[in-house]
Amino acid sequence: MTNENQIDLSNQSLDPLFNPRSVAILGASANKYKIGNLQVKTLLDGKFIGEIYPINRKAKEIEGLKCYPSLLDVPNDIDLAIFCLNAEQVQQGLEECAKKNVKAAIIFSAGFSETGQEGIEKQKVLTEIAKKNGIRIVGPNCVGLVNLSNGLIGTFSPAILSVPLDGQQGVGYVSQSGAFGVLTYMAAAQNELSFNYFVSVGNEMETEFSDIVEYMIHDPKISVISGYLEGSKNPEKLRILAKDALDKNKPIIVMKTGRSIAGSRAAASHTGSLAGSDHVYDAFFTQSGIVRADDYEDIISFSKLFLSNKLPKGRNTVIITSSGGRGINEADRCEANGLTIIPLSEKTKEKIMLNIPTYASASNPVDLTAAASVSNPELFIAPLRALIEDPEVDNIIFTEFPNYWDADHPLLKEFIGLCKASDKFIFITSFPLVGMSIPQGTAELVKNGIPVVPGNLNPIRGFAKLVEYSEYYRKNKELHVFEQLEIPKLIEKQDIEKLLPAGKTLSESEASAILDHYQIPTTKRSLATTAEEASNFATKMGYPVVLKVDSPDIPHKTEADAIRLNVKDEQEVVKAFTEITRNALKYKPDAIINGISVQEMLPEGVEVIIGANNDPVFGPVIMFGLGGIFVEVFKDVSLRVAPISRKDAHEMIEEIKGKAILKGTRGKDPVHIESIIDVLLKVSALVTDYKDSIKELDINPLIVYRDGIKAADAMLVIGNESEVKTTIRG
Amino acid sequence: MTNENQIDLSNQSLDPLFNPRSVAILGASANKYKIGNLQVKTLLDGKFIGEIYPINRKAKEIEGLKCYPSLLDVPNDIDLAIFCLNAEQVQQGLEECAKKNVKAAIIFSAGFSETGQEGIEKQKVLTEIAKKNGIRIVGPNCVGLVNLSNGLIGTFSPAILSVPLDGQQGVGYVSQSGAFGVLTYMAAAQNELSFNYFVSVGNEMETEFSDIVEYMIHDPKISVISGYLEGSKNPEKLRILAKDALDKNKPIIVMKTGRSIAGSRAAASHTGSLAGSDHVYDAFFTQSGIVRADDYEDIISFSKLFLSNKLPKGRNTVIITSSGGRGINEADRCEANGLTIIPLSEKTKEKIMLNIPTYASASNPVDLTAAASVSNPELFIAPLRALIEDPEVDNIIFTEFPNYWDADHPLLKEFIGLCKASDKFIFITSFPLVGMSIPQGTAELVKNGIPVVPGNLNPIRGFAKLVEYSEYYRKNKELHVFEQLEIPKLIEKQDIEKLLPAGKTLSESEASAILDHYQIPTTKRSLATTAEEASNFATKMGYPVVLKVDSPDIPHKTEADAIRLNVKDEQEVVKAFTEITRNALKYKPDAIINGISVQEMLPEGVEVIIGANNDPVFGPVIMFGLGGIFVEVFKDVSLRVAPISRKDAHEMIEEIKGKAILKGTRGKDPVHIESIIDVLLKVSALVTDYKDSIKELDINPLIVYRDGIKAADAMLVIGNESEVKTTIRG
Repeated sequence: MTNENQIDLSNQSLDPLFNPRSVAILGASANKYKIGNLQVKTLLDGKFIGEIYPINRKAKEIEGLKCYPSLLDVPNDIDLAIFCLNAEQVQQGLEECAKKNVKAAIIFSAGFSETGQEGIEKQKVLTEIAKKNGIRIVGPNCVGLVNLSNGLIGTFSPAILSVPLDGQQGVGYVSQSGAFGVLTYMAAAQNELSFNYFVSVGNEMETEFSDIVEYMIHDPKISVISGYLEGSKNPEKLRILAKDALDKNKPIIVMKTGRSIAGSRAAASHTGSLAGSDHVYDAFFTQSGIVRADDYEDIISFSKLFLSNKLPKGRNTVIITSSGGRGINEADRCEANGLTIIPLSEKTKEKIMLNIPTYASASNPVDLTAAASVSNPELFIAPLRALIEDPEVDNIIFTEFPNYWDADHPLLKEFIGLCKASDKFIFITSFPLVGMSIPQGTAELVKNGIPVVPGNLNPIRGFAKLVEYSEYYRKNKELHVFEQLEIPKLIEKQDIEKLLPAGKTLSESEASAILDHYQIPTTKRSLATTAEEASNFATKMGYPVVLKVDSPDIPHKTEADAIRLNVKDEQEVVKAFTEITRNALKYKPDAIINGISVQEMLPEGVEVIIGANNDPVFGPVIMFGLGGIFVEVFKDVSLRVAPISRKDAHEMIEEIKGKAILKGTRGKDPVHIESIIDVLLKVSALVTDYKDSIKELDINPLIVYRDGIKAADAMLVIGNESEVKTTIRG
Repeated sequence: MTNENQIDLSNQSLDPLFNPRSVAILGASANKYKIGNLQVKTLLDGKFIGEIYPINRKAKEIEGLKCYPSLLDVPNDIDLAIFCLNAEQVQQGLEECAKKNVKAAIIFSAGFSETGQEGIEKQKVLTEIAKKNGIRIVGPNCVGLVNLSNGLIGTFSPAILSVPLDGQQGVGYVSQSGAFGVLTYMAAAQNELSFNYFVSVGNEMETEFSDIVEYMIHDPKISVISGYLEGSKNPEKLRILAKDALDKNKPIIVMKTGRSIAGSRAAASHTGSLAGSDHVYDAFFTQSGIVRADDYEDIISFSKLFLSNKLPKGRNTVIITSSGGRGINEADRCEANGLTIIPLSEKTKEKIMLNIPTYASASNPVDLTAAASVSNPELFIAPLRALIEDPEVDNIIFTEFPNYWDADHPLLKEFIGLCKASDKFIFITSFPLVGMSIPQGTAELVKNGIPVVPGNLNPIRGFAKLVEYSEYYRKNKELHVFEQLEIPKLIEKQDIEKLLPAGKTLSESEASAILDHYQIPTTKRSLATTAEEASNFATKMGYPVVLKVDSPDIPHKTEADAIRLNVKDEQEVVKAFTEITRNALKYKPDAIINGISVQEMLPEGVEVIIGANNDPVFGPVIMFGLGGIFVEVFKDVSLRVAPISRKDAHEMIEEIKGKAILKGTRGKDPVHIESIIDVLLKVSALVTDYKDSIKELDINPLIVYRDGIKAADAMLVIGNESEVKTTIRG
């Protein structure tokens, strides 16, 4: 990192956006139907604690505030300017901001990069003005920014004001979609969680998604960073930030849309960002420790659960219910979300049974029967005590709770006392009916760290995300010791620049030479240009051997019938040489043929594939899978963005469905997993070192044995400059 | 079917339960806290249209109604008795019902089969009384039955009354869980859909889930049959009913819980029904044309969509939105649920673009931008017209709609006119915020067949279920012609009784002999007891051959090293014979060895597996998968309950992930799919004919070629009587 970056490590220069002492509204209006009026009103209604200066050439006063004909007429300093202007007026407004030394701006106006080439040019001009004058900008083409702690309702959307403005509990939210952002903000508030910050980043001209994330990581008021993302403009930065957030135990939870083909196409056109593969996003989130929300509900329920200040210790979960049906349904949900509904020990069951009716069930889900919620609320206490005493239990979920227990009820107090003294994660949920099943003592429960999450927020899925986060968090703590999260330096950058000519596809022997430089085991091989040479090489190597055409133009040697396995003697070598040469030329008459490669014949092993691709968003991405049909038919592969850590490499192997094959099935020995990890890390080093050149790498098959590994074939494509993603942008 | 069944084909004898002219309440009470009082009040509050007779030994009057000391004192006939009694009083009450000639009863009381052996015995006594006297009974251990059309609120749960009683639109609901049933009922009503019927079947003593389904199929007031199921007591009947319902275009949609291990364990203990594998339920629903709801929301949204009286023509779906983010999110949802978000033709896009702003998007999802919902509602019209004209579009989903259009708005009228004239499925959904985005003209839209489904009901998933149902429905119509849905009689029942001795595992040659009887191609084989005999057989058969031990005690021949492939001459036969005999005895010294099987050596082909298992709920279930690692590691199998139709067999092959391998990958020929179907149907015939004997059948591998198929090995286990499921219960 440069010194320049270090000056603003926390993105403190964004402070005037979030905490301006004074705000000017460019284009303020007395017309109730114009956003220039709505914006003045939202600031007043939000009780913004700083100065407000409406700017309007003609008006004297707007909504009771003195009006100024221009920004330059305002007698005091202005921290933030909010642009309620047409696209055409924006440039002039920004120039005035520069003159007035305004530190930040929110630009709502649409009509820039989202509209095509002309808009892109217009936006470029704005960017230059902003950069030159150090003005931090949210937008253009956004719905603004809200900070509830100082009443800065920097948006024209009156919807934001229709929800309670005092419920903030430390959750920040940043969105690439204005409308979806407002909806999520409102849904959260309707469920008694008002986000501290709401930022709609719009076209991300000067400030983008990860800048806001960075600001929030360094803001002590913020405990959870949440967002809606369609495509990241700076994944490298996001990855570094995510590590920082994990160190600080500030979860980042992001709803990334565009999972589907149509969705990802639309996301690309909507935000003007590159699409990238959603599978790569999945890999990226996993390896960065960012929680991926499946929908907006996850953000709300996750936050409510996280704000209890406990983290789940594991996946072992017990459900306590007063309805058999609800218990079964929630057990299904838990298992579908990767939680374990453990069978209870006899000892625990006995303890529970002592205190519940004979027709109730002490198995997990524990069914207290309707008696518990209707007439015998004391049933909620003893089973909880028994479960708290059981060391195998990590989490306890109540699917109902006596809704007539008020804050002073002695049983509620006993319940809270039990929960507080325990390190188990305990929470309460409900069936999503309006006005039903929410206990009266909810506020008391929540205050004491026992979350109550309404059923309409998909609380089990939200909880599973929290368990996932806890695992990231713990692993991050533990792995500091073993440095498994660091990118290992197995090998220094090798000087192979001249072996990577732009725009070329390398032949197998050329590609293998590069693997040799990175100490990836390849087969013994020699390139023969005559049959005699071939048979000499074979004799020296020892029979049997393999003969293959070596040509950048014939990557599919089997298809061309230009490969001979198990060649056993001199005579067969000569025959193979002739046939391969003939077939190759027949298959592709204009192919450049470097020669016929003579290679050792590898014994049978388990075939795997390691590849790399240059993703338009993420740069080099590493792929691992089992060879042949498993990749082609079952698409059983795992991905990670390079460079990868030892932990990543390990997880890549664990993630594939066919991993049992590596561990030995049907009487076969397990293969040497460490050597796969070694190749993954070396491939990662190679494609990271040459991320500006290597477009595609394919080691297929890579054969793994009980005690080692060897690349039996390789393919490498060098990109033209425009085809490969370069270093960190803006 | 017997004549007895034909008398009550539609379960008309359940009519007194649903439409009693008079109801007696046993255990009626003046005490406001007793269910005997609540039940009288719910009938009064529900404005039940028949006579109500409270029965109480002492009281003169309850809630203003004349009270009778006993059932026999009531001067008039009684159709239905509702039992508000302790478990101990139920038998006497039922005996009085018999004397009084009461036709039906609802028994709330718990304390019967759900509590263990003693309760089971008590319940048996009740069953006998009911059967002998022809009394139809719902319960015991249930929350009752509701019929909104006559005010029969046959439940003590006042919650049922807290929702509108006049919103019924033809949906019947039957539940194995009382509490979950009531919650679903209420959730539906809160979303403006009151179920006509609500039935909580409790212990299903005399009347079970499918009886209620049968009644509703024959009730002209009912258009959709929905339910909550933990375990079916009579799947055979349900399957027959499902076909009937499909013929009548009455969808059956069932939420089946117990998907997870813990959930299925709990379901088994909760309802006292057998667990059965959830995968088999999935297969059963698919082959029966029953829609499986993933959650209660699906039942409500599916019903709302179905009640529009249109069926989707296909999966090609277009989303129209005024928020880019919402559009992407809904597109993701659609694809995740198996719908296709089609790219629009240039022609359609041009038509749309003529009528929307330049910064809007004419691609799918069509993004009208915020302008549409805020200021330019006419934007909703022209794109719709263009999409209706496009023959490739099946469905159009609006993610928002101008919420200020009231019923008389001319644009709403134009919108309705366009939708009504089109055969495309068009509906409106919203983001799940309280009090947001629901158009004022909703009632008018719904009345005209344009469903409006709130976002909290997971409308896209509900819609995908409707598309699935439409496909069942259409296939059922079409297939009548080809009779693909019928169970084909490829082969008559074979007399093999004596080859199936109870409790035995058959050796390969014994199992193969049974396959021969059902004309399933097996390898040429002879059983040799000496090496000489073996070599004679081999010579006659032609080399190479395979030698295998033939023993019921050694199913895993490879593990025992008791199999030799590719045996090439007499000398090798003798060697193989000796080795196999020795290895087999070493592997299992007390094994019964029938001899050494000499078989033709089959050429290479694609290995598949066909198996059958006797499921405790469903009886014989057929399994299909690719051989070896694909089954063992990837669990890539498909299931169907026997007997199967040609359509089922076809779908079994289509369902496996590795089907591409059958169709030819990596330069290989496709295999002969018809011969797999043939074996599947013959296996189905065999295990159905002998469902009381065959516990397990495993043809593995079954080798498929370009032009045929052969079973290379087989295993068959005959059950003891208690191990196999027999015919239809109760």
